[in-house]
Amino acid sequence: MKKISLLGATGSIGTQTLDVIKHHSDQFSLIAMSVGRNINLALDQINMFKPSIVSVMTKEDAQKLQHQISDEIKVVYGEEGLIEVAANNEADILVNAVIGSVGLAPTLKAIEAGKTIAIANKETLVTAGHIVTDAAKKHEVPLLPVDSEHSAIFQALNGESSSEIDRLILTASGGSFRDKTRDELNGVTVEEALNHPNWSMGAKITIDSATMMNKGLEVIEAHWLFDIAYDNIDVVLHKESIIHSMVEFVDRSVIAQLGTPDMKVPIQYALTYPNRLEASNSEQLNLWEIGTLNFSKLDTERYRCMKFAYEAGRIGGTMPTVLNAANEEAVAAFLDGKITFLDIEDQIEQALERHEKINHPTLDVIKEVDRETRKFIHSLRN
Amino acid sequence: MKKISLLGATGSIGTQTLDVIKHHSDQFSLIAMSVGRNINLALDQINMFKPSIVSVMTKEDAQKLQHQISDEIKVVYGEEGLIEVAANNEADILVNAVIGSVGLAPTLKAIEAGKTIAIANKETLVTAGHIVTDAAKKHEVPLLPVDSEHSAIFQALNGESSSEIDRLILTASGGSFRDKTRDELNGVTVEEALNHPNWSMGAKITIDSATMMNKGLEVIEAHWLFDIAYDNIDVVLHKESIIHSMVEFVDRSVIAQLGTPDMKVPIQYALTYPNRLEASNSEQLNLWEIGTLNFSKLDTERYRCMKFAYEAGRIGGTMPTVLNAANEEAVAAFLDGKITFLDIEDQIEQALERHEKINHPTLDVIKEVDRETRKFIHSLRN
Repeated sequence: MKKISLLGATGSIGTQTLDVIKHHSDQFSLIAMSVGRNINLALDQINMFKPSIVSVMTKEDAQKLQHQISDEIKVVYGEEGLIEVAANNEADILVNAVIGSVGLAPTLKAIEAGKTIAIANKETLVTAGHIVTDAAKKHEVPLLPVDSEHSAIFQALNGESSSEIDRLILTASGGSFRDKTRDELNGVTVEEALNHPNWSMGAKITIDSATMMNKGLEVIEAHWLFDIAYDNIDVVLHKESIIHSMVEFVDRSVIAQLGTPDMKVPIQYALTYPNRLEASNSEQLNLWEIGTLNFSKLDTERYRCMKFAYEAGRIGGTMPTVLNAANEEAVAAFLDGKITFLDIEDQIEQALERHEKINHPTLDVIKEVDRETRKFIHSLRN
Repeated sequence: MKKISLLGATGSIGTQTLDVIKHHSDQFSLIAMSVGRNINLALDQINMFKPSIVSVMTKEDAQKLQHQISDEIKVVYGEEGLIEVAANNEADILVNAVIGSVGLAPTLKAIEAGKTIAIANKETLVTAGHIVTDAAKKHEVPLLPVDSEHSAIFQALNGESSSEIDRLILTASGGSFRDKTRDELNGVTVEEALNHPNWSMGAKITIDSATMMNKGLEVIEAHWLFDIAYDNIDVVLHKESIIHSMVEFVDRSVIAQLGTPDMKVPIQYALTYPNRLEASNSEQLNLWEIGTLNFSKLDTERYRCMKFAYEAGRIGGTMPTVLNAANEEAVAAFLDGKITFLDIEDQIEQALERHEKINHPTLDVIKEVDRETRKFIHSLRN
């Protein structure tokens, strides 16, 4: 029985993680969880999975929740609460499914506590990839990807030597606006942006998919997870999202992982690794039913965020922290109706241009740059 | 330095194996080889690779050849010659690239001598799969596939547990006549049949591709190599031959191996396994240049040989031996202009229908059934 702590239980990845745990209740149990603002859903989850500790965002939420559940379940809150869930004594594995760099500190604490990390929280790797991967190495803790693209690469590699890798090839659906020209992106609405053609995901990642920043963040994430230079990471547009990503080896052999678009597959693989269990209720892939898979080259003028991400990744130091913090704030502003879709990339560009990179940043430097960047993005609205 | 013995040096797989050995002459050397009728090409190969032993088909050829090369190179002939090459003392690995069930006895002797077997000779596995795989297990000898489809599955598996496999999915280009209706197959010529759209291969396998018997033989080969039931082996038409085959696991995750159609990649992988070396001169796969991959369901009424192969495989015993021997003789007759293209499947059907299966056949029984089947196919011409 693997004991699981879960950050971000009420989000898209969180609820699907709970589906997997429920389907394989003889294999997995939920020990600890954190939730955001959706306390009603959290209550249902607590009643079903009976974790021993739950973290919420504020003290008020914690007090309210404690009144509605058994005293035997401990309720905590804030960043300290996240850490208490993440590094919980009893847990074997942390599934980090929160959104944003808020996941960084709890991830590091869980690594120090020797937990296996199943990471869906890409912003943590983007903002502090060197610190997270160094800590994982030091504590000999596996970092298992949950993102479908990185899970695909991880499965394709399956222990093959990284010195024999020639190239990682991430596939990109192109997001909600893949069929629009750049001109047509003027004035697109939040509702249009939230309408992803293939994947059902949370709001932030769906907007990131529409700007293609999601793929940019994934390139940086892949760089850190698989220790591959940016020059050896390619992106190919593949609108059906059936090939989830690929690895090309030095002998020109390419290994790919495929499937119907269903996040439960990579989530479950991270939980069962190095083994596999039968699927909960995922659909079988029959390529003759799909008929055609399409591929095309990525236009980085069309998708400026991709270009920013490659540049920030190559520059390194604190630059990816700025990229990520500026993006988080700009996307939040777009979702709030405060800026336009194309403002997102303009604001990120401004944040990157004004920043002077700091090499080998410590965690404190990263936190400071993150805070400072968010402040700058806020200031653009006044 | 891996020392290689090669059966079928002048054929398509043989010459490409020599290309790989030449490109990586610091890693591989040719110790022993067998050739067919093409003595001129064999002479060039002998001069370049300087093996210590060469086998030819007849005593006359052996005497002629010995006059033209150094006395230090031993020349042998016939089935005994094949065995002397295959089980050569000095060799680490046997590449079996002969065509037809003639490869069976030398393969068994090489297994008994503890050689690693790189097998391109699918007829050996079709005609006596249980004997070959049992021997390989008993002598703890790896059976490494060279066929692009089986190499794809082998690479996709890469050590994953076979109990976690749900399905093997072989891809099929559809061969030279994939765009013809069944009616249009009446009266097709040998030249048309030899014009394969994707792969440059020998005559026998190209005809097998046109009848789709090749895919049927591959299904049986996959059954033996990977110990998977026929019900769990599917075939999908994929005319671009870019995805070389796939494995679906119990968790609905599918791992595929892809590449430009180039036999040097699977040949080299069998030689370098479990490692990889840079490609000799194989092209990089860029899916955006290809643009579209197409898949469709296989019509077993259109391709009757596929149906025969599944049936013979499921019946088991000596039935696959009959399938293979009848096919070898019927294809030879078609290539000789003695029967029509559609006669091939008719003759195979007749051979299968008249045969009474013998269970758990010994090698002698297999040889007898093979001989008897060939005699029957010959008798149909008189």
